[in-house]
Amino acid sequence: MIYMDNAATSFPKPDAVYSEMDKCLRTYCANPGRGSHTMSIASATTVNTTRERIAKLLKIEDSLNISFTKNATEALNIAICGSLSSGDHVITTCMEHNSVIRPLKTLEKYGGVKLTIVGADSLGRVDPQDIRKSINKRTKLIVCTLSSNVNGIIMPVEEIGKIARNNGINYLLDASQGLGSIEFDINRIHADMIAFPGHKGLLGPQGTGGLYVSPKIRMRPLMRGGTGSSSELLYQPEIMPDKLESGTLNTPGIAGLGAGVEFIQKNGIDKIRKKKDELTVRLFNGISRINNIKIFSPESAEENSGIVAFNFEGVDSSEVSYLLDKQYKIECRAGLHCAPLAHSHFKTVNSGIVRLSVGCFNTNDEVDFVIQSINLIAKGYRN
Amino acid sequence: MIYMDNAATSFPKPDAVYSEMDKCLRTYCANPGRGSHTMSIASATTVNTTRERIAKLLKIEDSLNISFTKNATEALNIAICGSLSSGDHVITTCMEHNSVIRPLKTLEKYGGVKLTIVGADSLGRVDPQDIRKSINKRTKLIVCTLSSNVNGIIMPVEEIGKIARNNGINYLLDASQGLGSIEFDINRIHADMIAFPGHKGLLGPQGTGGLYVSPKIRMRPLMRGGTGSSSELLYQPEIMPDKLESGTLNTPGIAGLGAGVEFIQKNGIDKIRKKKDELTVRLFNGISRINNIKIFSPESAEENSGIVAFNFEGVDSSEVSYLLDKQYKIECRAGLHCAPLAHSHFKTVNSGIVRLSVGCFNTNDEVDFVIQSINLIAKGYRN
Repeated sequence: MIYMDNAATSFPKPDAVYSEMDKCLRTYCANPGRGSHTMSIASATTVNTTRERIAKLLKIEDSLNISFTKNATEALNIAICGSLSSGDHVITTCMEHNSVIRPLKTLEKYGGVKLTIVGADSLGRVDPQDIRKSINKRTKLIVCTLSSNVNGIIMPVEEIGKIARNNGINYLLDASQGLGSIEFDINRIHADMIAFPGHKGLLGPQGTGGLYVSPKIRMRPLMRGGTGSSSELLYQPEIMPDKLESGTLNTPGIAGLGAGVEFIQKNGIDKIRKKKDELTVRLFNGISRINNIKIFSPESAEENSGIVAFNFEGVDSSEVSYLLDKQYKIECRAGLHCAPLAHSHFKTVNSGIVRLSVGCFNTNDEVDFVIQSINLIAKGYRN
Repeated sequence: MIYMDNAATSFPKPDAVYSEMDKCLRTYCANPGRGSHTMSIASATTVNTTRERIAKLLKIEDSLNISFTKNATEALNIAICGSLSSGDHVITTCMEHNSVIRPLKTLEKYGGVKLTIVGADSLGRVDPQDIRKSINKRTKLIVCTLSSNVNGIIMPVEEIGKIARNNGINYLLDASQGLGSIEFDINRIHADMIAFPGHKGLLGPQGTGGLYVSPKIRMRPLMRGGTGSSSELLYQPEIMPDKLESGTLNTPGIAGLGAGVEFIQKNGIDKIRKKKDELTVRLFNGISRINNIKIFSPESAEENSGIVAFNFEGVDSSEVSYLLDKQYKIECRAGLHCAPLAHSHFKTVNSGIVRLSVGCFNTNDEVDFVIQSINLIAKGYRN
């Protein structure tokens, strides 16, 4: 089996992820932050260690401003629903995932929020000036993805951050794609909120994610409940990260995420990026030589977080991914990737797109086999 | 280490929970419901198998009415915030957890919802007639816990269910405590919504939980995002369980939860209940002989889901749990257990309560050692 669906979830994980999760589950997995017994404290220590590692990775000063969530979707919903009010205006892009678009469209329809969705060029590149020009006096929030989950294009997030900061507008970065392999410094990106999954580029398990919130933003929580702190209060406490972390955390998952982030830190983002870039370029070059193929991803590795998205003209993407899976045991994703506006933009709503997304554990041999297999499939279409 | 904090999270889990999670993580953990390749389908199959097992355990006809959540708190927030509107009246009890009280108090303060909190007797028993008498023509929802997380008292959930049904009122059961060892039949309880954690009595890992919603209730989701279905829609799809399951699920966690539920089904709830009852009664009897001790839990196993809650008069609960941990390596929970109204009721807001909560893997020898240890601690207080 060759796994090239890393944009959906990374596979495999570093071995330490499996072993840390197993160790946590078998030896000390009590409820973190509930009770003060040895095992509960061991669980809380694991949670805090992971929180510290993520803060270090993102260059966030105070790790307590990072709350753990079950996935990036929860983080994005907290950020969007918890920071906007009726009358606010939001700017986002046509390259966003449904985890951004659906909450925003719902607030637009029912919550009195105005929404501007800026366009992109043929490769999905957003022009920061389009965002700047869309700002009005009610603009409260700019939401942008770090990189597209459809075609891998990396967004001009620093420029957008500057525009947001210069105009006193909150800036929410959806770091679902690219975190863990794109060098990241919050002091250059100026994001006020960062939503991220644990199970993609951070190499942790599913069931993990998080949200950084700048202390300047007073957020309404999405959920309320037991926090293990200020238990006497009948309302949610204001203290972070408890305010946004109601209920029992996923301790074994967070233990695994900690091991994933540690793997990245030990190996270095640069090295992981270089490896992914080489694989992506090799894949891109191999596929681009095939007749009758249309590639939607940027050729330059500098602009691409690790996706080669393509179609055979006139062929449904599901058919190609089906053949790749059944005939060649290559796992990739077809369809709309939960990003309908990007597909409207690429005019691929009907066909979808075949998306190959590499991870740091893929090999050149795997890439070559994938190219070979797509070549063979292409021949079938030419007959 | 003797673990007696099973009301916070069960420990250990059946060995199959660890092995199923590890197998999932290492061999097939792609994104379930995203893409149609072999590994993605294997992940989706695991998710569906667990869903089916839980449906069978709760005697729910259509498993698709069960959505997975990260914990019971998320499930309770969806149920409460997604089914209530301004002008509605809700009835709940003083024995509820903050995961019920905090969302309800917030809706009362900001959402135009009226709230009635009924009292209880000295052991936390709620009289269903108090609930019936609180019903008015705006009453939309009754929320009640299956059993108290503070003292283990099992609630008259069937009688309350009948009252709800007879009055056309939605009935939300918080099954956080007791599920997995209390025989459960939705057809007798008549719950319209059931919120449950995966990591307590169901013996799954942290990071799992779920919400059953009767098809008669049209719920607003708490989060919106990618569902892997109807990806072309810019709004949340109505189909269940997708509507309430945005973002990537915790596949390895759900694999573990499936193994936990299978363990319960193979062994039988009756047998697990019997084992827990024996341990609880042994613990209760042993502790009740100690001078100067006040027990807050019901003596009868029939009324108790597996908790012996106690205090030494005039001693802070944290001190006792500290001594149990440090001197005897016994893990239990002191404090308010995120249930402040129950502690107001027991007049223990200042001292908290020492809570010993047994699990099906505790032994008689462990119980005897705990009794002995508490005896020794008691002697210290008498000097």
